[in-house]
Amino acid sequence: MLKPDPVDPRALAAGLAELWSPRVIGALDDSYIKVAKVRGELVWHSHDAQDELFFVLQGRLRLRLPDRDVELGPGELFVVPRGVQHLPIADEECLLLLIENKDTAHTGDVVSERTRSIEEQLRDA
Amino acid sequence: MLKPDPVDPRALAAGLAELWSPRVIGALDDSYIKVAKVRGELVWHSHDAQDELFFVLQGRLRLRLPDRDVELGPGELFVVPRGVQHLPIADEECLLLLIENKDTAHTGDVVSERTRSIEEQLRDA
Repeated sequence: MLKPDPVDPRALAAGLAELWSPRVIGALDDSYIKVAKVRGELVWHSHDAQDELFFVLQGRLRLRLPDRDVELGPGELFVVPRGVQHLPIADEECLLLLIENKDTAHTGDVVSERTRSIEEQLRDA
Repeated sequence: MLKPDPVDPRALAAGLAELWSPRVIGALDDSYIKVAKVRGELVWHSHDAQDELFFVLQGRLRLRLPDRDVELGPGELFVVPRGVQHLPIADEECLLLLIENKDTAHTGDVVSERTRSIEEQLRDA
């Protein structure tokens, strides 16, 4: 899963079969670099001790925050600060690059049918 | 410099006037998210304790490593592991997204005419 060669995150995300199932494509210090294909909405959650980076590779993502919505278009980047509740929503299929701490559960403390273990996320993309 | 709204790293990098002068556009835990416009070559250097992420927003980047060259095209990503000497080279103008620890000096322990202090990097992009 940790590739010694350059990777094309958009192509890896496009190849994912399952929605909302992030895959680890690399590591950066204490963080994992992940890709995901999403459509529809995840669940409201937060990560108490870690920031989370969202970078839209293709499509559009709406991040609902407690006080506002943030709209991300292709090539746009946003960091959800630690402790801030957020709900990712994609009206159409959207490809994402995510960077989050290795200890971060992708649905925070919330366990839903969409929650994937880190072992599942470490399978080859 | 830390923007509460989504940012378009490619547009911010394109707007930079100075080559090889990274600007901080956000923070992610203990790391800074930076953009840079580069052409030509930097200097051989390494970062003893921190990995460094390179993501090519536009153009092409060659990373010379001790044992090989890594070629990055648009949309490709590579992490230089901590302690590994590297020399970034761009034959044509190239726009980069970089993520590196807040303590990381962008030219490592090497001070060259291209070395920029973190205060310089924190000026508005």
